[in-house]
Amino acid sequence: MAEPEMGLETMARFLGSENVQGSRAYLEQLDPELHRHIIDFVYGEVYAGDVLDPKTRALCTVAMLACLGQQLQLGVYVRSARRQGASEEEIREVLRQVAVYAGFPSAWNALATSKRAMEDFDEVAS
Amino acid sequence: MAEPEMGLETMARFLGSENVQGSRAYLEQLDPELHRHIIDFVYGEVYAGDVLDPKTRALCTVAMLACLGQQLQLGVYVRSARRQGASEEEIREVLRQVAVYAGFPSAWNALATSKRAMEDFDEVAS
Amino acid sequence: MAEPEMGLETMARFLGSENVQGSRAYLEQLDPELHRHIIDFVYGEVYAGDVLDPKTRALCTVAMLACLGQQLQLGVYVRSARRQGASEEEIREVLRQVAVYAGFPSAWNALATSKRAMEDFDEVAS
Amino acid sequence: MAEPEMGLETMARFLGSENVQGSRAYLEQLDPELHRHIIDFVYGEVYAGDVLDPKTRALCTVAMLACLGQQLQLGVYVRSARRQGASEEEIREVLRQVAVYAGFPSAWNALATSKRAMEDFDEVAS
Amino acid sequence: MAEPEMGLETMARFLGSENVQGSRAYLEQLDPELHRHIIDFVYGEVYAGDVLDPKTRALCTVAMLACLGQQLQLGVYVRSARRQGASEEEIREVLRQVAVYAGFPSAWNALATSKRAMEDFDEVAS
Amino acid sequence: MAEPEMGLETMARFLGSENVQGSRAYLEQLDPELHRHIIDFVYGEVYAGDVLDPKTRALCTVAMLACLGQQLQLGVYVRSARRQGASEEEIREVLRQVAVYAGFPSAWNALATSKRAMEDFDEVAS
Repeated sequence: MAEPEMGLETMARFLGSENVQGSRAYLEQLDPELHRHIIDFVYGEVYAGDVLDPKTRALCTVAMLACLGQQLQLGVYVRSARRQGASEEEIREVLRQVAVYAGFPSAWNALATSKRAMEDFDEVAS
Repeated sequence: MAEPEMGLETMARFLGSENVQGSRAYLEQLDPELHRHIIDFVYGEVYAGDVLDPKTRALCTVAMLACLGQQLQLGVYVRSARRQGASEEEIREVLRQVAVYAGFPSAWNALATSKRAMEDFDEVAS
Repeated sequence: MAEPEMGLETMARFLGSENVQGSRAYLEQLDPELHRHIIDFVYGEVYAGDVLDPKTRALCTVAMLACLGQQLQLGVYVRSARRQGASEEEIREVLRQVAVYAGFPSAWNALATSKRAMEDFDEVAS
Repeated sequence: MAEPEMGLETMARFLGSENVQGSRAYLEQLDPELHRHIIDFVYGEVYAGDVLDPKTRALCTVAMLACLGQQLQLGVYVRSARRQGASEEEIREVLRQVAVYAGFPSAWNALATSKRAMEDFDEVAS
Repeated sequence: MAEPEMGLETMARFLGSENVQGSRAYLEQLDPELHRHIIDFVYGEVYAGDVLDPKTRALCTVAMLACLGQQLQLGVYVRSARRQGASEEEIREVLRQVAVYAGFPSAWNALATSKRAMEDFDEVAS
Repeated sequence: MAEPEMGLETMARFLGSENVQGSRAYLEQLDPELHRHIIDFVYGEVYAGDVLDPKTRALCTVAMLACLGQQLQLGVYVRSARRQGASEEEIREVLRQVAVYAGFPSAWNALATSKRAMEDFDEVAS
């Protein structure tokens, strides 16, 4: 299986290296074992693959989280998609498509979450 | 709003022009009004935008349908993603990521649907 | 609480008295306790109220089952809605609205289930 | 396709003409394109049909949103159902039925949302 | 069917007799009929069975509510599971398993809800 | 992280050692990488813990899969729960409780899947 270093490196690429320490502290107090699974399995295995370019991968994550109504994690991955080079308009276009597959309320809620996340991203980046 | 021609043209781009007549005949006997909404709104409006490249758009659709467990439409969009130039391995990588967000059974079911859809695609293409 | 007779009477009103024996035999072999809960609670309590007219109640059930993707029970309640006087077109209109709230694949699947259920209903009724 | 006027007129009928400007301003800042789809497709096409009477349509929307756990939009449509003439008790009866199809927590959450929405409606109406 | 006394006794066993009055007052103002269904059907029938030991039953409820994303009721049943003798670590282990079946965001959200509920439980118990 | 041996040993305990080869062959042709994640992460990490006794763990899995409507995997875990010593009646009791949290159609579908899975289990065991 993947080395822990691989997981941390991949996490830094998707969440931003300046956010890794905060994210890990949050996860550690939530549950040390889930924390370990996220580093080793989610980032060390699934996200570590190089078959998909990081921007496409992050946009697919945004699509999934919007359909599942997982607003907290959606905010994180909207910022990640911006970090991987997705434009605001590309993210919005993915979220409009959510209306077709998961209904208008899911698209609407996701666009509201996304708007706040993109404002946060711009503020930090500026 | 979009012209009906735009909807049909976009539908042909995503589903393959050789499949448009069959798809429309199926939709028409199912419900003429839903048929019209799919041509005018889904393809004539949402899919007609050019902000996302067609391959990324189709992969996001695959991601959404797998999370929602919509196997019938997933098969259609796995073939569409192949038609837009996504490799088998890129599609599989999106579906493995479904395990992280919607659980292993959803990823497993989607990979089974996808395997059959990719075999059909290769058969017709060869 | 409701008398068992109330439950059976309400079940007969919604499913058709000619279908009660078959439905109960099916439920009994599936699980005698769930069978009892369906007669006593679902039909003896929830469906026994007279606040909603039976046609509106059945259409709301159709709306719920379509959003939840429960095709088996949807078929039963499409026939029930027809029995309570809903037209084919009213049922279709509810199911088209599913596209707005739960997405096009849910509406499409529900319209396919509904089409078969309405054909069965017409066949028996003719 | 429907004229934009049709969408605005239908939106006013369901949401109350005094609420249209506020709703549109909210949608416009969220995403101008989703705003346009809601006027043109949701209200201009789906809701514009006259097959269902407006009260039945609004109660079916309440049923769907409660099953999907979409609390924000549920509040809007509980008020819309009241505006179309549904009594408080009819709305509650639909939501109790949600317990049968989507489980007690969904019914409970929907009744809590509905209680607040009905109080708001009465306050404005009085 | 079950006597109302059975429902109240079972509710007290699962929620704690000191919490019954408050829970009932909340449910009564929400909807008297749903209140009655929860006492008579949920506690008087389903929870009153003695086939499952109470701890296993409460852990299965925790598993279900976490998969369904019903955070409010999850908090109640995490405390109930503690009351039936489940350790904090057993509850966490169930919730980690949620990552496998319903995805990491559902497990994460459930662990956050559970952490707060277990702190409340300890505070009251101490 | 866990050794692969741990994953295979845990998989054998839950699925039955006589079923491991068949399950792995199925997973391998579906997707070698998902196969690896199921052995290393699902069985090598999550299921390998000893905080929960295997019977309680399997019953929680049954509860989750029934709420999520994942019938294929539910059949596998109903047999696993029987293998860990759960009685038919305990499994049924968990599934009746699904009616409370995810609605009657989910409970009904799960009891139908479970009935077939328990018959298969008895046949092989006899």
